[in-house]
Amino acid sequence: MREQTVDPGLGEKYTGRTKRLINKDGTFNITKRGGHFSIHDTFQFLAGMKTWKLMLTLIVLYLLLNVVFALLYLWSGIENLHRTDPELSPFLNAFFFSVQTFTTVGYGVLAPQGHVTNLLATLESMLGWIGFAIMTGLIYRRFSQPRARILYSNTAIITPYGEGMSLQFRVANMRSNVLMEMKAKVLLMLHEPETFNRRYFELKLERSSVQFFPLNWTIVHPIEESSPLHQVTQEEFVQKEGEILILISGYDDTFGQQIHSRFSYRFHEIEWGVRFQMAYEVNEQGETILNLHRLHSTEPVIPAT
Amino acid sequence: MREQTVDPGLGEKYTGRTKRLINKDGTFNITKRGGHFSIHDTFQFLAGMKTWKLMLTLIVLYLLLNVVFALLYLWSGIENLHRTDPELSPFLNAFFFSVQTFTTVGYGVLAPQGHVTNLLATLESMLGWIGFAIMTGLIYRRFSQPRARILYSNTAIITPYGEGMSLQFRVANMRSNVLMEMKAKVLLMLHEPETFNRRYFELKLERSSVQFFPLNWTIVHPIEESSPLHQVTQEEFVQKEGEILILISGYDDTFGQQIHSRFSYRFHEIEWGVRFQMAYEVNEQGETILNLHRLHSTEPVIPAT
Amino acid sequence: MREQTVDPGLGEKYTGRTKRLINKDGTFNITKRGGHFSIHDTFQFLAGMKTWKLMLTLIVLYLLLNVVFALLYLWSGIENLHRTDPELSPFLNAFFFSVQTFTTVGYGVLAPQGHVTNLLATLESMLGWIGFAIMTGLIYRRFSQPRARILYSNTAIITPYGEGMSLQFRVANMRSNVLMEMKAKVLLMLHEPETFNRRYFELKLERSSVQFFPLNWTIVHPIEESSPLHQVTQEEFVQKEGEILILISGYDDTFGQQIHSRFSYRFHEIEWGVRFQMAYEVNEQGETILNLHRLHSTEPVIPAT
Amino acid sequence: MREQTVDPGLGEKYTGRTKRLINKDGTFNITKRGGHFSIHDTFQFLAGMKTWKLMLTLIVLYLLLNVVFALLYLWSGIENLHRTDPELSPFLNAFFFSVQTFTTVGYGVLAPQGHVTNLLATLESMLGWIGFAIMTGLIYRRFSQPRARILYSNTAIITPYGEGMSLQFRVANMRSNVLMEMKAKVLLMLHEPETFNRRYFELKLERSSVQFFPLNWTIVHPIEESSPLHQVTQEEFVQKEGEILILISGYDDTFGQQIHSRFSYRFHEIEWGVRFQMAYEVNEQGETILNLHRLHSTEPVIPAT
Repeated sequence: MREQTVDPGLGEKYTGRTKRLINKDGTFNITKRGGHFSIHDTFQFLAGMKTWKLMLTLIVLYLLLNVVFALLYLWSGIENLHRTDPELSPFLNAFFFSVQTFTTVGYGVLAPQGHVTNLLATLESMLGWIGFAIMTGLIYRRFSQPRARILYSNTAIITPYGEGMSLQFRVANMRSNVLMEMKAKVLLMLHEPETFNRRYFELKLERSSVQFFPLNWTIVHPIEESSPLHQVTQEEFVQKEGEILILISGYDDTFGQQIHSRFSYRFHEIEWGVRFQMAYEVNEQGETILNLHRLHSTEPVIPAT
Repeated sequence: MREQTVDPGLGEKYTGRTKRLINKDGTFNITKRGGHFSIHDTFQFLAGMKTWKLMLTLIVLYLLLNVVFALLYLWSGIENLHRTDPELSPFLNAFFFSVQTFTTVGYGVLAPQGHVTNLLATLESMLGWIGFAIMTGLIYRRFSQPRARILYSNTAIITPYGEGMSLQFRVANMRSNVLMEMKAKVLLMLHEPETFNRRYFELKLERSSVQFFPLNWTIVHPIEESSPLHQVTQEEFVQKEGEILILISGYDDTFGQQIHSRFSYRFHEIEWGVRFQMAYEVNEQGETILNLHRLHSTEPVIPAT
Repeated sequence: MREQTVDPGLGEKYTGRTKRLINKDGTFNITKRGGHFSIHDTFQFLAGMKTWKLMLTLIVLYLLLNVVFALLYLWSGIENLHRTDPELSPFLNAFFFSVQTFTTVGYGVLAPQGHVTNLLATLESMLGWIGFAIMTGLIYRRFSQPRARILYSNTAIITPYGEGMSLQFRVANMRSNVLMEMKAKVLLMLHEPETFNRRYFELKLERSSVQFFPLNWTIVHPIEESSPLHQVTQEEFVQKEGEILILISGYDDTFGQQIHSRFSYRFHEIEWGVRFQMAYEVNEQGETILNLHRLHSTEPVIPAT
Repeated sequence: MREQTVDPGLGEKYTGRTKRLINKDGTFNITKRGGHFSIHDTFQFLAGMKTWKLMLTLIVLYLLLNVVFALLYLWSGIENLHRTDPELSPFLNAFFFSVQTFTTVGYGVLAPQGHVTNLLATLESMLGWIGFAIMTGLIYRRFSQPRARILYSNTAIITPYGEGMSLQFRVANMRSNVLMEMKAKVLLMLHEPETFNRRYFELKLERSSVQFFPLNWTIVHPIEESSPLHQVTQEEFVQKEGEILILISGYDDTFGQQIHSRFSYRFHEIEWGVRFQMAYEVNEQGETILNLHRLHSTEPVIPAT
């Protein structure tokens, strides 16, 4: 084994048994302490939520705020609401008035009277004003960030290649965004249990970039003599808790931004002695059809001897 | 023919007669299966529509939503709407009340009464609140994306150049955006019907970049000895279903973003033995006038013998 | 004269006396014909206007739209407006009702009655809804685009430098944005009246980049033997209608975007035999003060003989 | 001392005792005169304020504007407000009407009458319309700008390294944003009191980049023979008012933008003869825990002799 490269920023020392370095969603198994709370992070956290969770959160916040104001209007005296609906309970009258104020519908059948109720309504319509601006920002941010989703084959494989062997995995673009000028960088991390050190090796790729990315892309590391994987057996690989760290970057032409995707295959996610099945076909109309489900399909091979 | 280059990501194997690889609008003739629905894609799809289609869609959605709520108000009892207009049908009363609620105009002549109608109005004003935020985001997204429109001459031409021949085509900026630092990359794709393989060749350009782009730009590939087009006849080119794949990128100084444009000329879109006419002229005031209509103008030449 | 470089995209042929190639505001003296109207361009045009012009335009459009709707309400019958103010003319009643509808204030004292008036109000509140979204987008776009304003000294100068002479001009950042990693590229364009050709030369700079840009930056082209300006007299320069074309780019750290600035000095904007006065000083508190007014200050020198 | 580099744009001449060049917040100690006021800068200034300051500013502006309009409504005659609340003072009636107009709640119990009051209400609802658009833009801008906060260790240290010594400092990402492809550039500035010149030297780093940045990063300048710090004593360094200028850049994968951070250590912020304590540890679950508070921790060392 040779050609060790420098630590990519994930640490070379470790003090005990570690989890995987890069999770399946591209995050790192590293926790930070001592940062401090920031509204900025809260905004970004909300904008990064799944759409239905964000919507649910917004609706819950909306209802909560109206309940709080309804209670405040009750406290300030329901008699200070003009023309309440006798059919409804005081709370509901206050709640509907709150909604009409917050959303600035303001039918005016229900209307505030007296000092306290008027002040509350003033406060609430201002909150509605600001809250609406924040929500518009959130929703826009939610949808205007490139959300490239690179799909990785479930396993990386060790498969014959030319005269020797190779490490391969496949990626495809899950979204309808146009991705271009894709680049891949692949590192191998091996633990050295004797010295509690992690060692990193960059794996040389047959092709480290493609110009267009409408199809799947098979990333191939030929296991030549200079490869850190040369003559490493499956047992050694498992014992050293090897992890393949992957960074894929490219340009999202739909959003006009650079995108990055991180992934890793740990020792138990590598299949020995299989090969990938073709994932696309050309139909009778001359169109090429890529089937994302088949990205993971492998079939056994008899290794070249 | 030599200097074959690697597959730009469009696939090297094909199983039958294929359509063109790159369509005139820059998309690929590749269909993806197995992706899953995402609200994110819907948003992006809407934001990418032509302006009038987007407006029409928004108006139709707006009307539909108000019709649905009008029916709901009718169902909850038209008598729960305060002060309806006797001149109008119950449906229209409900419809106009719905509009007044959704847009938060809320005149209040029409106003909700009772539990169900008040709840519906609460729901609708909240939908209006969120819907408005989404629409603001959509419209902003629609207009803030760089929409560089590179105009390509209708045909690429094979024309005399110096002592030999060349492949040429012309491009210009259709929009008023300022484009800069333009780069061009041109590939030739040839089918090999015997082996069902596609072969890709990069074409060397006389100039692969220009700094400014207020005029038209003629992109020239001199057909030298090392060119894959050297001594290829028109018949051979047609028979191999040749396609010229073009990628033009640059910086949109108006939007502050990188832009990319894809295009292709297929075998039947190449004119042999013509040359381009000049597309701009200097008028009496010393101003240069570029006429986009003349970008396509060619005239016959007697090839140098 | 040697080291001619390729056309930067501004054309090499000209048919008559030309204006300057690059205007003082960075635009080109080139007009395009044959493009077609696009709402997208209109949006960008509005967002690119000076703030007070944009505001005035919005206000005028706002008033116009309300006048049009006021006239429509009058046409549909002022008696269809509920509770009009007898103190006001029918037109003003209709106008104020229109404003209350468009802005969704909807007090409800004035309220629509009957089919036509209700339909008009529905239409107007929808327009208000969409119009507001467009305006929010416009205003945001207006303020979120980097508007780097590079200030150029009024004249470029020919001044002693080391043993020989040099062409110099000065630039500074007019705004409070933080600009970084500035790069400069300078071309010389000379007309050849005999052949109606323009020739372009890149001028070698003493320093073509600076890392930080809080002060002024003096850009220096030493007129060495290899310079196209070597032994060119002021008369020759004027006769060939020489123009110095400048492209300055950098990174706007406030807006997180790349910025570009174009400028040119024409033959009559070059001062011979002066030098720049220092534009900044350190005050007693140890602070450096840059005076933008002094960026243009030159003083005569006796040229080295 | 050798390997002097060019001025990074901060000036080489100084006329008196100077403050530090780069402040702790990354700004420069340089003041500009002669720029002119721009609404654009005001917008950017507001969007750059701390969140609570921005909110406070918006609320104060909101209240102020409503007080001004309340006074205008009083001046135009409180009798022109329909159905005022007898329980409230005329001013409060006018104030609450103003709020209901500006936020477009428009209950309509309070409603304008007569020419002047109607005109005022028209003006105010238009202001509310535009003001709201501006605020939405401000809030979005406030939260959509990358706000990378790189935390720097309180001091830079001179510490043993291999056979010799080194200058070191540590950085970490304070935020939850994902930062990648970090690059560091470190300059040394020394004053020469005799000639009133500043000299700049680039310091060669052991590693000038890391790929990932979830942990802390120790930036190391080995003080080899070619280093401008070679054999410089603490006394000399203080006397020449040395300053270490730092520029760290990287890619913010959360915001999809390039980020830049500037910092400096002045002569009195450098600790001699200490070393950094490890700032992260691996817990029993195999997770790595980075403690930002320990980024600054140093402990004394006996320098290698």
